[in-house]
Amino acid sequence: MQRYALGIQYLGTAYHGWQRQNSGIPTLQQALETAISKVANANVELVAAGRTDKGVHAVEQVAHFDTETVRAPYNWLRGINALTPEDISVSWVQPVSQEFHARFSAQRRVYRYFLSCGIVKPALLVNRAAWVYGELALAPMQRAAEYLLGRHDFSAFRAADCQAKSPVKTLERLAIHQQNNVLIFEAQADGFLMHMVRNLVGVLVAVGRGDYPPEWAQQVLQRGDRRHAGIAMPPQGLYMTSVEYDAVFKLPQASSSATSVFL
Amino acid sequence: MQRYALGIQYLGTAYHGWQRQNSGIPTLQQALETAISKVANANVELVAAGRTDKGVHAVEQVAHFDTETVRAPYNWLRGINALTPEDISVSWVQPVSQEFHARFSAQRRVYRYFLSCGIVKPALLVNRAAWVYGELALAPMQRAAEYLLGRHDFSAFRAADCQAKSPVKTLERLAIHQQNNVLIFEAQADGFLMHMVRNLVGVLVAVGRGDYPPEWAQQVLQRGDRRHAGIAMPPQGLYMTSVEYDAVFKLPQASSSATSVFL
Repeated sequence: MQRYALGIQYLGTAYHGWQRQNSGIPTLQQALETAISKVANANVELVAAGRTDKGVHAVEQVAHFDTETVRAPYNWLRGINALTPEDISVSWVQPVSQEFHARFSAQRRVYRYFLSCGIVKPALLVNRAAWVYGELALAPMQRAAEYLLGRHDFSAFRAADCQAKSPVKTLERLAIHQQNNVLIFEAQADGFLMHMVRNLVGVLVAVGRGDYPPEWAQQVLQRGDRRHAGIAMPPQGLYMTSVEYDAVFKLPQASSSATSVFL
Repeated sequence: MQRYALGIQYLGTAYHGWQRQNSGIPTLQQALETAISKVANANVELVAAGRTDKGVHAVEQVAHFDTETVRAPYNWLRGINALTPEDISVSWVQPVSQEFHARFSAQRRVYRYFLSCGIVKPALLVNRAAWVYGELALAPMQRAAEYLLGRHDFSAFRAADCQAKSPVKTLERLAIHQQNNVLIFEAQADGFLMHMVRNLVGVLVAVGRGDYPPEWAQQVLQRGDRRHAGIAMPPQGLYMTSVEYDAVFKLPQASSSATSVFL
């Protein structure tokens, strides 16, 4: 039995999230397992680093599968990509030891959130970014972000049906860059709770609008109650950007070519 | 009667091009005229700088219409954008004199073509860029582009059903930039023939692949025969980027915010 790791890029628009559901509901896991099973000539099950929600994209999701079928990595790559729809691609395939686990071996995850701000809806960014009417003040958002860094109980930023065992995560980075009138939020942590990135951005947006001072982000965090944390941002702006593993696994990860026109 | 000019951004994917057709076929002109006519409370006809083809996008198309209805530019803008679908937005509206004509007053047009190159299909760029398998050599393409600059009969780069009166155009600029593995072609001319940009890029791609030397571009141009000019590139990579007018019209044109995450 050989274990393979793979890097996957996808546009989440047409899918009800990563996780396989009842037949007839299109999901990323189901579409990929169907393609990989055909190339393997046997049923294959995928384990992913994280289950992205409906409408959320990935620059690089990482997953693994086990199979008795022997193929060179490049043949897996070509075969799978010939069978996936145009909005799902495998960027690389790599044999790994049984010690590798796409979810449990992941040390760090990075997500980006693209938010267009302005008085005109961004027609060219449909399903690629979210939009808020008007301008957001960058500096207060950046100050608010600093209150959220570090190891905390992030219950206030967790979806009601989140199944994570512990709400304690270490948020290592929460940066905001502005590219013309698009804000790019980058969040890096050892792990994320369900809807956590969209809820973090929602709090920052409320601060950027001037609805609350930056210190409010700390109050939300300390109160630990989702009901005080404002709105979750919509899924179309969110990209699972990268997943980090120990160098011992020698994964051929790189900034994915597919997003090279995104900064 | 007041004439208004407007800047328009759109994603062409869902439309059979700019020009109004028989009822039931969605076009950009029809969608915009419907929205503007509602805001004007009267039928309005649009004249555009150029008729983009099915599937072609615009960062900034320019059009004009005449109306007896008096509204402030900002009210036109808000009203129209509230009524257009999410893939069409008006970026600005400006009253202009009757001397202004969106098509005949245009002095210069700029198009960009986004082409992703690599062994993996770019899932995140579906309907936003074209894709070629493998790598293209940049330097030979840039040499080929130089042969095409200047005032020429561009019949070799013209669609069979092109209705332009003259095939003579002045190509002022044909630049190629590389952003990671996405090539961005920028073409600037006093005017373009039907399919001209897609045919120009098709010739450059054939050179970049090594199928022909750079000098071949000159031979294609001189031969003046479409049948010797290789393939037209698909529409999804093409963006009408800007249209230039005399400063006397004082149009509020700018690099459109909607494409700010595109370089």
